[in-house]
Amino acid sequence: NVRYGKRGMGLEEMINEANSYYLVNHLAVIHKKPTPITVVHVDYPDRSMAKITEAYYVQPSTTDYNGVVNGRYIDFDAKETKNKTNMPLKNFHQHQITHLKNVLENGGIGFFILAFTNLAEYYLFPAALLIDIWDKSQLGGEKSVPYNLVSKQGIQINSKMIPSLDYLPALKSFFKI
Amino acid sequence: NVRYGKRGMGLEEMINEANSYYLVNHLAVIHKKPTPITVVHVDYPDRSMAKITEAYYVQPSTTDYNGVVNGRYIDFDAKETKNKTNMPLKNFHQHQITHLKNVLENGGIGFFILAFTNLAEYYLFPAALLIDIWDKSQLGGEKSVPYNLVSKQGIQINSKMIPSLDYLPALKSFFKI
Ligand SMILES: [Mg+2]
Ligand SMILES: [Mg+2]
Repeated sequence: NVRYGKRGMGLEEMINEANSYYLVNHLAVIHKKPTPITVVHVDYPDRSMAKITEAYYVQPSTTDYNGVVNGRYIDFDAKETKNKTNMPLKNFHQHQITHLKNVLENGGIGFFILAFTNLAEYYLFPAALLIDIWDKSQLGGEKSVPYNLVSKQGIQINSKMIPSLDYLPALKSFFKI
Repeated sequence: NVRYGKRGMGLEEMINEANSYYLVNHLAVIHKKPTPITVVHVDYPDRSMAKITEAYYVQPSTTDYNGVVNGRYIDFDAKETKNKTNMPLKNFHQHQITHLKNVLENGGIGFFILAFTNLAEYYLFPAALLIDIWDKSQLGGEKSVPYNLVSKQGIQINSKMIPSLDYLPALKSFFKI
């Protein structure tokens, strides 16, 4: 009886659903960034069609999501684990941490959405705390974020029907926007 | 003696250069979004390599650039023309206009960088004005933005050595951030 996300949706799908809901209902403009790809060769089988026949994934330089809520810049990434007791840091990448440091330094709002899929629990967790844990891990500290810390320092995202992962109330209350 | 951009750089290159400069100097975090591509087939010639062999461009749903300046969300696109007397509206797309309307409605800052390459003149032009002109054109109005209007209502971006298209001062003074 393992559940993978709500209503069988994956985490990214749930976030996309929420973002569409916020856009249509004039609550926020938040988009997932496209995956960066370097195109090497394109064929034109006919005049109106471009078919990419050689391309490669390139390392992103940011997180996956950003946008605007009440004029404020928000920026986040989403991570999931099947673990019930911690979120492993191997799910995170240095470029995401560096980007979120830059965002915070310029007055933006940064966070992670952390999903414990086997508990069906979702948390908003501030980037500042995650950066701190990451930096300590680089110096030999813990290689994961304990579930207990997430549930204490994060803010749980409540289940709803529509959208199923309604993270905007948690975001607005945590960051007071 | 036609000049294409400053120091022979294209418009996008100049904006990327400025964004890198702002990032390194802790002035702003602004990135170009990757071009959205749907990947259909990937080959793995060896374990460490993914080669995309079939993919297609998809219609973007946003503008090309967004980021944070002093905590405020900013969003823009860049357009260039060789014309000396107007910027044709055919350079703009409905999805960009719609996205910028959504951004403004949610308190974000939206604008265009308009380049008259044969005049070597660059302007920051507020999205609100462009949206107004676009909406009127859809009802049979002008199909271009007159240079005179851009130079009067926009704010000219001054030439500098580094970065060559230093649009941040224009942005901060126009939107008072
Ligand atoms: Mg991610
Ligand atoms: Mg463009």
